[in-house]
Amino acid sequence: MKETQTKRTEIYDGRVIHVVCDDIVLENGETSKREVVLHNGGVCIALQDDDGKYYLVRQYRYAQGKEMLEFCAGKIEKGEEPWPAIVRECEEELGYETEDLVFLGTVVPTPGYCSEVIYLFHGHKGKRVGQHFDKDEDLALEKYSIEELGQMIEDGIISDSKTIALTYRIERKRLHER
Amino acid sequence: MKETQTKRTEIYDGRVIHVVCDDIVLENGETSKREVVLHNGGVCIALQDDDGKYYLVRQYRYAQGKEMLEFCAGKIEKGEEPWPAIVRECEEELGYETEDLVFLGTVVPTPGYCSEVIYLFHGHKGKRVGQHFDKDEDLALEKYSIEELGQMIEDGIISDSKTIALTYRIERKRLHER
Repeated sequence: MKETQTKRTEIYDGRVIHVVCDDIVLENGETSKREVVLHNGGVCIALQDDDGKYYLVRQYRYAQGKEMLEFCAGKIEKGEEPWPAIVRECEEELGYETEDLVFLGTVVPTPGYCSEVIYLFHGHKGKRVGQHFDKDEDLALEKYSIEELGQMIEDGIISDSKTIALTYRIERKRLHER
Repeated sequence: MKETQTKRTEIYDGRVIHVVCDDIVLENGETSKREVVLHNGGVCIALQDDDGKYYLVRQYRYAQGKEMLEFCAGKIEKGEEPWPAIVRECEEELGYETEDLVFLGTVVPTPGYCSEVIYLFHGHKGKRVGQHFDKDEDLALEKYSIEELGQMIEDGIISDSKTIALTYRIERKRLHER
């Protein structure tokens, strides 16, 4: 049952988070309110090294109060397309150009209250260009095989949703290529 | 590199979303701000019918502007534990008691700016108790085998992160039980 916006109230437009509260009307005439975190969307890449292993980023995630292990990812800037965004993020976070970039679908992290869609990619490591971090960023790179990633998800060592979704898509792709 | 809160500013405390902006200090002395959506956490269940198929919920997701197909899920109420929360959600959304409930790990939908952790469960359909919806909720139930779910994720028909993570965990579990 489609929900149509009748009014939008701006709540907060911060550095990362943009929150609105919309009045809506349902097809049956009922009215309600929907709080939404507006988001330009994100990109995420499984970058494969020459040895077949994938680069992951270990970083402290303040909202979770702990270090997490995730595929390289970032926000799509306003007006930017996913394709240049993933090339940029890969160079900034991992320090490499990408080759043989393949789109592996999308994942919606939080359908209940956030507009974010993450575009998933697979690529091979290209030319070294060096990383560029913000001063409040601290990332460590690690490398794992696809089999190790599956086991780490099962063991709860990896719990990030985009990393799980992308690992799954890679496993399915390999299954069909056999 | 751990990040420690030095000050918290309340931004918005709504019906679903609670946003704060914290001043933080990094271990290297750098300071920054972190916007966080505070969340009590969620629960999600793959409820299996006697024919082996799983119940999914089709509903309009306003933040995504379209219908989505997801496992039954809900918010953990303040002070509530995941176990009673999933029993309650399963009865309200699917209309069934649960048997043989098994915990299958957690998923973090949005580590970048949200504290939400979703607890994943597998269960079998128990006694029919009837659904209870809010007046602004409209849910349709569908049933799929685990093989169908995998194909629907690959085809982009299912893109919800908790549903992908739980499907993956069930597939891994089955793999080990063979």
